[in-house]
This record gives sequence, structure tokens and C-alpha cells, in this order.
Amino acid sequence: MTNQISGGTVPLVRADVIVIGSGFAGLSAAIEAHNAGSSVVIIEKMHAPGGNSLISDGGIAAAGTEEQKKAGIADTPGLFYKDMMKAGLGINHPELVKTVTDNSKEAYEWLRDYIGVPFLEKIEIFGGHSVPRCFTPEGISGSVIVKKLIQKIKEKNIKIMFHTHFTGFIRNTKGKVTGIEVTENYNYKKGDTGTVKHIMAGKAVILAAGGFGSDIDFRSSQDPRLTGKIDTTNQPSATSESLKAALHIGSCPVHLSHIQLGPWASPDEKGYGDGPSFSEYIVFQRGIVIDPGTGKRFANELADRKTLSDAILETGHPCIGIADSAAVKNSGWNIEKCLKKGIVKQFASPAELASDYGINPVSLEKTIDRFNSFVLEKNDTDFKKPVIDTASEIKTLPFYGIRLWPKVHFTMGGILINKNAQVLDLDGRPVEGLYAAGEVTGGVHGASRLGSCAITECIVLGRIAGMESAK
Amino acid sequence: MTNQISGGTVPLVRADVIVIGSGFAGLSAAIEAHNAGSSVVIIEKMHAPGGNSLISDGGIAAAGTEEQKKAGIADTPGLFYKDMMKAGLGINHPELVKTVTDNSKEAYEWLRDYIGVPFLEKIEIFGGHSVPRCFTPEGISGSVIVKKLIQKIKEKNIKIMFHTHFTGFIRNTKGKVTGIEVTENYNYKKGDTGTVKHIMAGKAVILAAGGFGSDIDFRSSQDPRLTGKIDTTNQPSATSESLKAALHIGSCPVHLSHIQLGPWASPDEKGYGDGPSFSEYIVFQRGIVIDPGTGKRFANELADRKTLSDAILETGHPCIGIADSAAVKNSGWNIEKCLKKGIVKQFASPAELASDYGINPVSLEKTIDRFNSFVLEKNDTDFKKPVIDTASEIKTLPFYGIRLWPKVHFTMGGILINKNAQVLDLDGRPVEGLYAAGEVTGGVHGASRLGSCAITECIVLGRIAGMESAK
Repeated sequence: MTNQISGGTVPLVRADVIVIGSGFAGLSAAIEAHNAGSSVVIIEKMHAPGGNSLISDGGIAAAGTEEQKKAGIADTPGLFYKDMMKAGLGINHPELVKTVTDNSKEAYEWLRDYIGVPFLEKIEIFGGHSVPRCFTPEGISGSVIVKKLIQKIKEKNIKIMFHTHFTGFIRNTKGKVTGIEVTENYNYKKGDTGTVKHIMAGKAVILAAGGFGSDIDFRSSQDPRLTGKIDTTNQPSATSESLKAALHIGSCPVHLSHIQLGPWASPDEKGYGDGPSFSEYIVFQRGIVIDPGTGKRFANELADRKTLSDAILETGHPCIGIADSAAVKNSGWNIEKCLKKGIVKQFASPAELASDYGINPVSLEKTIDRFNSFVLEKNDTDFKKPVIDTASEIKTLPFYGIRLWPKVHFTMGGILINKNAQVLDLDGRPVEGLYAAGEVTGGVHGASRLGSCAITECIVLGRIAGMESAK
Repeated sequence: MTNQISGGTVPLVRADVIVIGSGFAGLSAAIEAHNAGSSVVIIEKMHAPGGNSLISDGGIAAAGTEEQKKAGIADTPGLFYKDMMKAGLGINHPELVKTVTDNSKEAYEWLRDYIGVPFLEKIEIFGGHSVPRCFTPEGISGSVIVKKLIQKIKEKNIKIMFHTHFTGFIRNTKGKVTGIEVTENYNYKKGDTGTVKHIMAGKAVILAAGGFGSDIDFRSSQDPRLTGKIDTTNQPSATSESLKAALHIGSCPVHLSHIQLGPWASPDEKGYGDGPSFSEYIVFQRGIVIDPGTGKRFANELADRKTLSDAILETGHPCIGIADSAAVKNSGWNIEKCLKKGIVKQFASPAELASDYGINPVSLEKTIDRFNSFVLEKNDTDFKKPVIDTASEIKTLPFYGIRLWPKVHFTMGGILINKNAQVLDLDGRPVEGLYAAGEVTGGVHGASRLGSCAITECIVLGRIAGMESAK
């Protein structure tokens, strides 16, 4: 078949529902659209499904579950809602947060029972959550969930077109989205060298293309600090072209400049890496972070991601996280991998550590002494960091150090949707024929996302997009 | 003349440069474009020029002026730059901030010498500025500056088309902006009932249409707290249609959700009003703000605008600012007008005040006692508010009270421009034929604008837009 729409003749594919992107949101949308009776095709520009979903740790927050009740954890969607609104500094869109939190339990159960994801028994708690409500798949990896979703996609014979790059929407004269233009044989590194194809949607297009954390030009237009000097935990495919295509047809942007950085990242490895397990669970909890230029602390190491990342960036150079052997031992974490890769270094004395990182050894000693006195008094009068216990004095040799420089982790902003996952235009009206879900959208997390809420968002709103698009 | 562009035939006007908006930025742009040899026409939807510029206090920040040197104030564009970047939380666009601060002195001198604005001798300092650098016109009103700019516009026979509503850009096949569509006889309350007209630009269009503080639908799409329950200090004409028109042709949005609220505003009067002189200069300095629901303080009353506004909004209801007679006397401010209008009320006793605002009198008394003990110890252990002097105990009757509920004051975000005032598209390329300056743009102020910097921005970038557009 061919298509005449753009004047010429291009190959044509048809489906009731087109899903752009094959991460958590896209796969969930595709399954629900299929279950609602629609024919579905999924477009993925890379050679494999999953995008950033694949490299996440797979934790999904859900409130009011049976597992929580059994564990004696009192939780409700309302409490979850409050936690998300607080983290988002109140600029989250309430109806979206309510939709995500009200449906979180069902989303988790859908993954567990219908998709067949094996979850660990332990219910985790992350910073900003009032109670433990994070459910983690076996293997502590999003790839486990993606694999199971793909199994379901295959069972249902839903077609995924790989190496297929979305390049723009096709609309009818009334502005309704009726299809998309793609290039085939897309190669991420070479760009759009393949043939153009039109895919026409009988019912709707669902945009689930993910965030733009790896798009240096676009992210730095929104937050100019985020140049190429800042790395990202994201896949290289996390770029902005689908978001821009939606903006080009009048979709409403929201919260684009709210971009989350991870302060736990090491510049001595690519991506998320292994360092964060040492910095987040050992250094921040029981150690200190210092500016090598001054040899002094400059922030509460247990501050939220944004506060600590901003403080490190403001120094203008990587900062040094320090912990002693007792901290490592008391944390229960194994840091062998970090040591082997050279992300974390071991030092026989504070002087050796100072010398290696170019810190004035006298300043370093003073800073450690001062911190230790705060630990003993259980009162950090400089930065109000909560003291875990008096055993967290930094004194047991060897010491350990890590260089820290924030990495772009998540883009809170995107295009605005309503609770039915319909994309809204600049005047607040639905863009006919267009739905969206996941990181490409904005409004759910406001100014800052809590850990384990991204997957809840993707599953809840991806499923809604699939069901609504089939109507 | 008529125009065939849209298929039909519409009346046609031509000019080298079209300026949309007649506030500080638009008028400055028009004068410079004219001086560079272009024919210029200004479009204004209202019946009179000036928009929000008219109701501002007219203060312009400028660094490194002769007046500062004479007064012994050491200031440089570099120091000004640092202050703006700090206030903007680092997400300001550095090249725009550098442009504004480097040219601030010249902008002030242009207003003073070329435009003939009479300035007061006293150099003011506002929160967040390192040194006094704010120059205020006689009458402490932006209307004084607008009047002088309009005088210059008249001298040069530059035409202003009033009641003329910009409804969209006209572009050629290459995407270059070549003109605009307007409706004539526009009536703000009735909408676009007049005739359509095309205005063609030989060189460029300059968008200087102001912010969107009065546009409830659009501002609440970016910050959902800012519904109709929140008033604004802006003119009713501060709406988003020109910004949306620019987004519709692919201009890059930036920082749209960063909307500044004034925590000093009273819900018992419209607009900016008179209450802020009492709340900002008396209550915040030497008094307290309490939540009537608890009878307790909840924030540092001298925190920045954003922090205090957010804290008041979070209580869910107007809060009460309280000061005693000594505070009023020591401030040097006259509050007669506020009392006469009923914005500020006088109370013979704390109990009377508590009763009037529905506060538990015992809680109120405890809160005042606790605050007074902080004053005497010069240490506010609850909220770290700096204590001015021990005379700021709240004890001298009568007491005074004001209801406080934040109002939308300034929209930091808008469309992104470069240092030549060229509008940038989503890929960072200039939109051919389109320039912009003032509050309709974003990037200069980042997350938060400092007082007296808006006028500097408007004059500096308005003038640049005028000069560049004529090239």
C-alpha cells in the first residue's frame, strides 16, 4: 500500500493505534489497547525495546497493597498523593497525581498477576516517601519487567517495528492526528538515512517516547548548566525529537526546566554506574562531602537530590565524598566492585587521601574533627544533617573516597496531558487523536520526582492511554 | 491597499519593523529601530500605551554608574551578574544576564539623558542586590518613564495603532516571519469583533507583548496552584495569546512554570494596592506572620518572595501579619491610607486581634511571647529570621493586623531569545524575522527575578531588538 498524503507516494502501514516508544509506558499502552479490541503497532527507533526502562532498578511505588497490610504498613493513596505533591513543591497537576496514586495498587497487581513479574518480598522505602511502598522485581532491574511485558506483547502478536524513527505527526484538515511519518532502517548514530514511511492510525497515536536527559542542546536550553560537561544516567536514545514534534503541533509544554540531577554520581564512570551505591548509602548517611578547593563541607549530605546537586555544581568542580571503614562495615554494602573499577579509592591515612585529591591536608583534618564533634553532640550546627549514631565518627582507617559530579537523571517536564492521557494544547483542549504517557509528559512530578514513582506513572498512565485510545 | 496572503483580500499596512506591545521594551525597540533608519509601527491592543510598565514603580537597576561612584558605592556589571544568577538559582541563561548587566548603565543613562526621565537622587537597594543600584523616577512610578518614551515616539512620528489585537504571525514559504494578522477596533472585554487586517514587515517583527500574569488558564497550566483564587498585581491585559502565537510557530519555551508571587499582598484590595508597604516594610521586618488555623508562625518572614509565598499558600488560607505600634513608628512609614481603606486594622489588645481574625487567643499569646524571647536573645531558633534590634519585641499597643494571600506578580518564563534579541526555535536556531524583548521572553531571570531588574531587561533588550531588527 502507498499513501498520497504528502503529495508524493510513500509506503503505508495501518493500525487502529500507533504507540511510539517501547518502554514501560508504551508497552503497557499497547497491551491495553490490544485488549480493548484495537489493532496495535509499536514504533521503536533503537534495535531493542525498553529504552531507559531497561536500565532502571525496576522499583514501583504502590499504596494500600495487601503486602503492606500484612507487613503492618498503614498506607493509602491519599498519603502517597501528599508525598508526591510535597516533593513536587506543589506545582504538580493534582488530577494527574491523584490518577497515579489512586491506581498505583492496581498497576502493581497488574504487573505481578497479569504480566507475571516476580517481585521481591521486601518493601523498600525511598527518601520522601512516608512509608515503605516500593516493590522491586527480582534482579533489582527494570529489564525483568520489560522482558515480561515483551512476552505478553509477543503472545498477543503485537508488532514492534524496530529501527523505525518517528519524525512527525500527520494531521487531517481539522487538526486531528491521523498518523505519523517515520524513517525505516534508522541507525541511531547515522541519523535518518532510511526510507520514509507513513503509518496511519484508525483511532489514535500514543506518544510514549521517554524523556530528553541525553539531549544536551535541548536540556541546556531549559537549564543552561546542563551542558556536555554534565553526564547523564540515561540511555543515549533519551532525546527530544518526539517531544518537539508534539510541541510543533501546538501541544502544551509544562515544567521543561525541572530536570533532576543525581548528586550520587561519579565522573569516573559512564552512566548510572556503581558509585551511587557507595555515595548514597555510605557517604551521605555516615560520611561527608567536601569541596577539594576549600577542604570544607558545604551542604547537608542528606539533603534532597536537587539541593545537594545544586550545591556541588556551584563549587564548579567535582567534590569528594569520604567515609571510613566503620561506615562501610555498618552500612552492610559491599564496595569491592567500586574499588576494583577505581570509582572508590582506599587510603591508609587522611593525608594520603588529601594528597590524592589535591586537598589541603590541614583543612581536611579540621573538617573531619569538626564533623566528628557534631556526631558526638548529635547536632550538626553547620548543615543540620541528621546524625545516625555516634558510631558514625570518621576515624577508622582505612578511609575511602569518591569523586562526585551530578548527572542528569530524569526530566520532570514534557507535554501536558489530562487524567485520560489525552495530550492538551496551549488552550487546554485535547489534541484530537493524540495520547501520551511516561517521561515524555510533564505535570505528574512537578518540581521533583520521588524515587520509584516513575514506573507507577508509566504503568498507570500507559494503561489508561491504551484503554482510552481504543474508545 | 489589500493583501492576498490568506486567500481572501484584507486591508494591508506596511512598515519595515512592526512592534507588538507598547510597554518599556516595545517603546525602546521602536525608538531604536526608527533611529536606525526603519519605518516603524507599534500595535497595542488596549486604548492606551504602557501595559504593566505603567503600574510598576519605575525602578531600574544599573551597575557602575557615576551616581554610585559619587555615593561611594563599589559596583560592577560582574557583581550585578552574580546577584541575578544567584537569585535565578543558576538556571538563567548566562549570555542574556551578561547582556543585561553589561548594558545596564547605558540603559539607565539613555533613559536619563536621551529620553529625559527625571530620576530621584537616592539610590535604593532591594533584596538580593549586593549594593544599592536601583534608580527610581520622580513620582516612584513607571508611568513617568512611559510618558517620556511616548513623547519621544511622538517627536519621531512613530505610529501607534491602539485597539489593535495581534492574532498571529504571517510567514513566507521558508518560515520567515514577514508580517502579522491583527483585528482592529479590539475591545478587551468583547474580544476579536473587529475587522481583520494584515500588517507586513519589510524587515522584522518585534514581540514585546509582556507577561501572562493575568491569564488564569495558562498560568495554572504551568503552576496549578495559580487558579482564579489567586489575584494578580498585573493589568488585566497581561494574557498569553502572543506568547502562544510564538509557540505555535515553533519558538522555544523556557521557564514557563517559574511564576513569581508577591507574599506581601492583601486579599482585601485589588491588584498591588497599598497593603504591601505595611507588610513588606513593617510586618516582615519587625513583626510576625501567623497561620490563623494554628495561631503559630510557619516561616522566616524575611525569606525570599518564593519561599514565603509558597509557605502561605501551603496553609490553604490567608495568613495574618502582625506588628505593634513601635514597629510602625520605627519603620518611618505612614500607614494611614492602609487603615482608612481597611486593609490594615488596629486593635487595642492581642485578644481583640485574635477574635477579629478567628485565632485561638492563647496560641497567639504563646506565639508572641516565644517570638519576643527570640528578639531578646537575637536568635530565632524556629525560623532563623534575622533580628533587627531588641526594640522589635511585639508589645506596644495598639497592635496592627493585615490579611496576607500571595498575588501573581511576574512571569519569569516566556520564549527563548539570544543576546541579539532574536527568537530561537526548538532546535536553537533563530526564527527568521522575529525578535522579542521584555516579559514575553524567558531566560534572563531564571527561577526568580530580583526587584528593579525587569526594567533593565526591557530597556536593554528592547533597544537591542530595535537596532538588530533594522539591520
